[in-house]
Amino acid sequence: MPEETISSRYTAINFVQKYALFSEQWTPKVIAQMNDYQFKVVKIEGDFIWHSHADTDETFIVLGGTLRIDFRDGAVTLNEGEMFVVPKGVEHKPYAETPVRLLLVEPCGVLNTGDQGGERTMRNDVWI
Amino acid sequence: MPEETISSRYTAINFVQKYALFSEQWTPKVIAQMNDYQFKVVKIEGDFIWHSHADTDETFIVLGGTLRIDFRDGAVTLNEGEMFVVPKGVEHKPYAETPVRLLLVEPCGVLNTGDQGGERTMRNDVWI
Repeated sequence: MPEETISSRYTAINFVQKYALFSEQWTPKVIAQMNDYQFKVVKIEGDFIWHSHADTDETFIVLGGTLRIDFRDGAVTLNEGEMFVVPKGVEHKPYAETPVRLLLVEPCGVLNTGDQGGERTMRNDVWI
Repeated sequence: MPEETISSRYTAINFVQKYALFSEQWTPKVIAQMNDYQFKVVKIEGDFIWHSHADTDETFIVLGGTLRIDFRDGAVTLNEGEMFVVPKGVEHKPYAETPVRLLLVEPCGVLNTGDQGGERTMRNDVWI
């Protein structure tokens, strides 16, 4: 853990402020950690790739915009103020017709492309 | 896991709708589970008791109102759209001058009063 002052230890994490720190899409940024789980903000627009996470569920919380998560046998649409937990091992493909601000909750070390890999894979340990 | 139809499996969890399902304060309700962690909504107003959780961090996300979390050596104030992770073992006391809608994230089985117990302790497994 980095050296901290008392004042920084007791500082609120503000979602709007965190989103203002970056513009690139599909690049999750860690903003907080609880035990071995992390909270990540990410901006997305358009189609992601089909993938799954064999070892963990993954939580999507929509803080702005409308997200659709496609499954092989259905889909769920999430508006601002809504969440969904994708069960482990279930193939899914996020899609956003217009820009979406997401909050992800998942264990440390989870890759955005899950078991699929490929060019859309991003670093999973970038804090802002 | 209860028997589900495909349609219910792929249904968004809406925070506003969940808060509308109950009125009592200081009684966390489980709305989702990710692995062995749960998301709980709770309405609070006034003072809680000093307590800590020896074995786990605890995440507070404010969805409405203004929450203050007091520590023995400081405090943090969280407005809507802000979060804070209370480290395990750290004594804290939530306080809300006016009604607050909270989203908690913590491992299954965590009690609201932590290691303190007492009459403010609520069941930790009530789903809505």
